[in-house]
Amino acid sequence: MDRLKKRILTESAVSGGDIIQVDMFLNHCLDIDLIEEIGKDLAKRFRGEKITKVLTAESSGIAIAVFVARALGVPAVYAKKFQTGYIDPSVYSTEVHSFSMEKAFTLRVSRRYLDEEDHVLLVDDILSSGQAMLGLMDLTSQAGGTVAGLAVAIEKANKEGGRVLRQMGLRVEALVTVERIEDGRIIIAE
Amino acid sequence: MDRLKKRILTESAVSGGDIIQVDMFLNHCLDIDLIEEIGKDLAKRFRGEKITKVLTAESSGIAIAVFVARALGVPAVYAKKFQTGYIDPSVYSTEVHSFSMEKAFTLRVSRRYLDEEDHVLLVDDILSSGQAMLGLMDLTSQAGGTVAGLAVAIEKANKEGGRVLRQMGLRVEALVTVERIEDGRIIIAE
Repeated sequence: MDRLKKRILTESAVSGGDIIQVDMFLNHCLDIDLIEEIGKDLAKRFRGEKITKVLTAESSGIAIAVFVARALGVPAVYAKKFQTGYIDPSVYSTEVHSFSMEKAFTLRVSRRYLDEEDHVLLVDDILSSGQAMLGLMDLTSQAGGTVAGLAVAIEKANKEGGRVLRQMGLRVEALVTVERIEDGRIIIAE
Repeated sequence: MDRLKKRILTESAVSGGDIIQVDMFLNHCLDIDLIEEIGKDLAKRFRGEKITKVLTAESSGIAIAVFVARALGVPAVYAKKFQTGYIDPSVYSTEVHSFSMEKAFTLRVSRRYLDEEDHVLLVDDILSSGQAMLGLMDLTSQAGGTVAGLAVAIEKANKEGGRVLRQMGLRVEALVTVERIEDGRIIIAE
């Protein structure tokens, strides 16, 4: 997706060695028009597949998941990381290790919103180590549902997440693949 | 907004005395079509006002804020509650007491995404005690920006938030006002 590539190359920066900062348009300040196009493009790649729900993790995946779900005409569910607001006491839960947070956290989703009839498209902003995606897969599997595929705006190919998930036989779609980071410069795969 | 009223009356439940559960369509499992209509209706009420940004708090306000921002053609920014992912080290921050969480938390927004030129519409799913909104107002004020108004899907009139904020001279728009909860039944204002 040329528009996203261009924004990454012209606006994003690199910090902490290999954290790509895309908070200026993707996950803190949201460029709605860009995120809507990201959502539509990701949905298009799964058109024809049976998908009944979009599942993401709190919070950076929510905006993209909303537009993927809108394009597919299905609800979006976000697994909660934080104990805020009301959540059904009856949940599926899974432990996820976050490398960027350098700690573990629990993802929870109410049992009411995932079941064995569900074909679930997992959505996130960035695929890196794949730990959050493995957590979402575990939640779907606990519910007896089927993972229809994984859709992300940006995949970091210098991390093992995408490779591991594809080796598991899953379909992983990314709009932009960051090949590597070289002297603080982001190298995007053609 | 009749559609939202109907969903509240037919689907939501009450727990813990007066927590209104709307997680089945508003803030855990997201009915995108409904939330888009909520966003459009809230935006319509502020049409003609100068608004340069929509500001919400992580996480339950994000989906609504996205559609308000889309209808107004401006970016949406969400203040972060949690230390996850990348955030600019230079932030405005404010302490907020949450009655539903029974603890205090810090809201942070990068200094890059709010400034003195901004006219900010504050958006959330539910207005109750108003603490989160006061936090968002404080962030806007630290940036030297102007609060253009407050827009929420649901206002709980049995809590003091809406009254306090209006007494401060702010324009507060809610699509549905819950008058009170009576024996576990939700009474909506006409």
